[in-house]
Amino acid sequence: MSTLSARLNENSAPRELDEVIAQEVELRLEENDFAAALDLLQQLHPADIARLVTELGRDHAASLTLALPTITGANVLAELDEAFCADLLSEVSTERITALLNELESDDAADVLSNLDETVRQRVLRVLEDRESVKGLLEYGEETAGGIMATEVVSVLANWTVAEATEEIRRNAENTQDLYVVFVIDEARKLKGFVTIRRLLLSPSDAVIGDVMRTDIRYVTAEVDQEEVVRIMERYDLVSLAVVDDNQRLIGHVTIDDAVDVIREEAEEDYLRLSGITGDEDRTDTVFSITRGRLPWLLLGMVGAVFAGSVIGVYEENIRRASVLAAFIPVVMAMAGNAGIQSSAIIVQGLASGEVWSVNMLRRMGKEVYVAIANGLALAAVMIVAVLVVFGWMASMWPSFVIQAPDPWRLAATAGLSLFVVVILAAVIGATIPLMLDRIGVDPALATGPFITTSNDIIGLLVFFMLAAVLYLPFI
Amino acid sequence: MSTLSARLNENSAPRELDEVIAQEVELRLEENDFAAALDLLQQLHPADIARLVTELGRDHAASLTLALPTITGANVLAELDEAFCADLLSEVSTERITALLNELESDDAADVLSNLDETVRQRVLRVLEDRESVKGLLEYGEETAGGIMATEVVSVLANWTVAEATEEIRRNAENTQDLYVVFVIDEARKLKGFVTIRRLLLSPSDAVIGDVMRTDIRYVTAEVDQEEVVRIMERYDLVSLAVVDDNQRLIGHVTIDDAVDVIREEAEEDYLRLSGITGDEDRTDTVFSITRGRLPWLLLGMVGAVFAGSVIGVYEENIRRASVLAAFIPVVMAMAGNAGIQSSAIIVQGLASGEVWSVNMLRRMGKEVYVAIANGLALAAVMIVAVLVVFGWMASMWPSFVIQAPDPWRLAATAGLSLFVVVILAAVIGATIPLMLDRIGVDPALATGPFITTSNDIIGLLVFFMLAAVLYLPFI
Repeated sequence: MSTLSARLNENSAPRELDEVIAQEVELRLEENDFAAALDLLQQLHPADIARLVTELGRDHAASLTLALPTITGANVLAELDEAFCADLLSEVSTERITALLNELESDDAADVLSNLDETVRQRVLRVLEDRESVKGLLEYGEETAGGIMATEVVSVLANWTVAEATEEIRRNAENTQDLYVVFVIDEARKLKGFVTIRRLLLSPSDAVIGDVMRTDIRYVTAEVDQEEVVRIMERYDLVSLAVVDDNQRLIGHVTIDDAVDVIREEAEEDYLRLSGITGDEDRTDTVFSITRGRLPWLLLGMVGAVFAGSVIGVYEENIRRASVLAAFIPVVMAMAGNAGIQSSAIIVQGLASGEVWSVNMLRRMGKEVYVAIANGLALAAVMIVAVLVVFGWMASMWPSFVIQAPDPWRLAATAGLSLFVVVILAAVIGATIPLMLDRIGVDPALATGPFITTSNDIIGLLVFFMLAAVLYLPFI
Repeated sequence: MSTLSARLNENSAPRELDEVIAQEVELRLEENDFAAALDLLQQLHPADIARLVTELGRDHAASLTLALPTITGANVLAELDEAFCADLLSEVSTERITALLNELESDDAADVLSNLDETVRQRVLRVLEDRESVKGLLEYGEETAGGIMATEVVSVLANWTVAEATEEIRRNAENTQDLYVVFVIDEARKLKGFVTIRRLLLSPSDAVIGDVMRTDIRYVTAEVDQEEVVRIMERYDLVSLAVVDDNQRLIGHVTIDDAVDVIREEAEEDYLRLSGITGDEDRTDTVFSITRGRLPWLLLGMVGAVFAGSVIGVYEENIRRASVLAAFIPVVMAMAGNAGIQSSAIIVQGLASGEVWSVNMLRRMGKEVYVAIANGLALAAVMIVAVLVVFGWMASMWPSFVIQAPDPWRLAATAGLSLFVVVILAAVIGATIPLMLDRIGVDPALATGPFITTSNDIIGLLVFFMLAAVLYLPFI
């Protein structure tokens, strides 16, 4: 234990710390010393407890989490993976769940509830203290401002004094631990401005809110997409963004910690999609649900590959005549795929961050083409040299180890030219498809990864075999 | 103009808004109405101005930015892409640069300076108001806590009263606009705790800081990697993280807006690396610098593809005997590549987020294998059916359009088995390489994208042609 406390005090890297404590807790559990394990856990932040109990598996996680003080247990629930949390609560009584959720802010309570069984959810909603807000939150789309906002805001009127506003904060103290901004509304709850807590602190207590507030407030309506919400918060460095209804009445706010979670989630989703994985994979997901997220992309790739195979099938006669051509299939596919992915990734990312505007499409495309020409020239040069070395020099040095290819110079020229054309085509296709999808309102990220690779494979092989049929085969 | 102001008031999506105003500004500039263009700009947030002038190109950007009020211009500089900012300042006098940087917080000033010429930097550093802090900041690694922290913190002693702490905030008011937390230090500047501004506001003005402060403070030392910094801030929902020196003396803090920028940057970098692009591509990058970030990966892919081509070369005799085998090359490569990328992406992401701990490596690998078995079985089944349909049924229906393959049943079995083995091998390799790299302290993200695809292509082709040599060719 001494090393453990020492490390706790050291404030060392959380990842290592987790592992040390995780091992200690597992040890206690193996020794059936549940109380000691619980004691260890209670020294930790709820976020750390959540990560730790997830590692321990569902049964230990459930018994430990429920044995914690209610407020700690509630905060642990809020930090768990959604599916794992629902699983953990599946055998817990409605009363217990309600008691736990009563400790959470409305948005966290709604998140936990949204993953529970319909019947359990309804029963909890009937008795929850905060049921009106939580019910309201559950009605917004999960990935909208309404879906990620908290309803716990402090709002004041413009004719109040700073002292009155301070009293209002004190009244709401329990639900607004992390408060940085107070919103100013009118009698009809319409949003008028905001005051930072810092400004309140530095203003005389009899100053009028209307005189110290700022009116350059940014806000969104509840149905705005969460990506747009975080883009606004990021761009203007906001720690809290007001959410209003269609009549501009204040209904909640999105806090920066939830925005950060959204940024992380969206980034992970994009990363996985680029790798051919749909949705998010949690540590606690089953093999079945993981497979469901991956198999469709593999099947899509397979369909594409069958088409690519058909291209080869069409030119089967040529391959029989010059089987050396088959050896070029990998390089054509690899270059077409890689160059296409590069261009599409840049465009998709530019569109996502708002950097690529449609007015600049032509300029952006032009640059992609120039880059492709530069890459194509370099790759073609390397290819030509490689072909001459392998089929010219090596084939004559070690004739039994290397395929004999007639007319290596012509083969080199054909391969080089093909590569040049393929790289440019691949880049243009990789850049065009996401731009076109964005134009017609489809998420351009759909057209990355396996999709671009596959279509470029087909086109690359077509170009190569067509050029070979015209430039190489007739002359050997 | 009326539509423009209307849209400004509407608070519509920033991306559309940008485009509307960008067009208006460009129009004014085309009409040579510089003053009107400037007027338009001044209505915007510096972040928006920065995006807009970037679109206008360097010369317009420079003249507009420098014509803005100094404080606005300075904030625009802080928001620009680094290379573009340096380019824009390249012909500006040292005095002017100094005046601009004097308006910025130390971390932003250091960021701008770090991209300038050594001589200009030295000259500015000699006269900058904040030169001591900025010089200090420039010495930290760019991607460390020291490199992203601001030195403008408000620190108080534990024996001060709330009123005294408030006075201290007021004294520092100019440099600490976005202040949420006051740090508590001792006489030796050692970090002891923190008080939120909210707590100060709600406490009686004669309360002693030592009684209202929280001591469960998290902090990092200046050399901690920025990814670790944001991981801590994310996990514990911090808006400000203290940075200390080796003697635990407070030297600055990282604010959430800078942490968000780091999260975004790192996510973009990972996304691009997965697509075979090194570093970050800015809108303002030249064709040469873009090519430099992409060509190495293409060349790497080419080298790999040459090896894959050699595998095909080795089995050239077999392809000549049964040229139908060549048609399977794309599907083998596509499945090996895609399955490998999926596994490696999941592991790399898990390692980055701290979810995959080395203690769980075996468990994680086990799951990857099960998923691969499920995917492999499904893909093999589809493959077998497809081969039977194409080479069994279609080849007999339309003999002149489809390659004739002897013994379609045996071919189907060989292809199915190969695919099954290839998918499992690819998944194991895709998962193992990043885990191994992480073990030996190399960034596992290096082993994604083109790298995994290429090595799996080679292994996939080897497996397929070896199995075909044993299971198919001897029997036809």
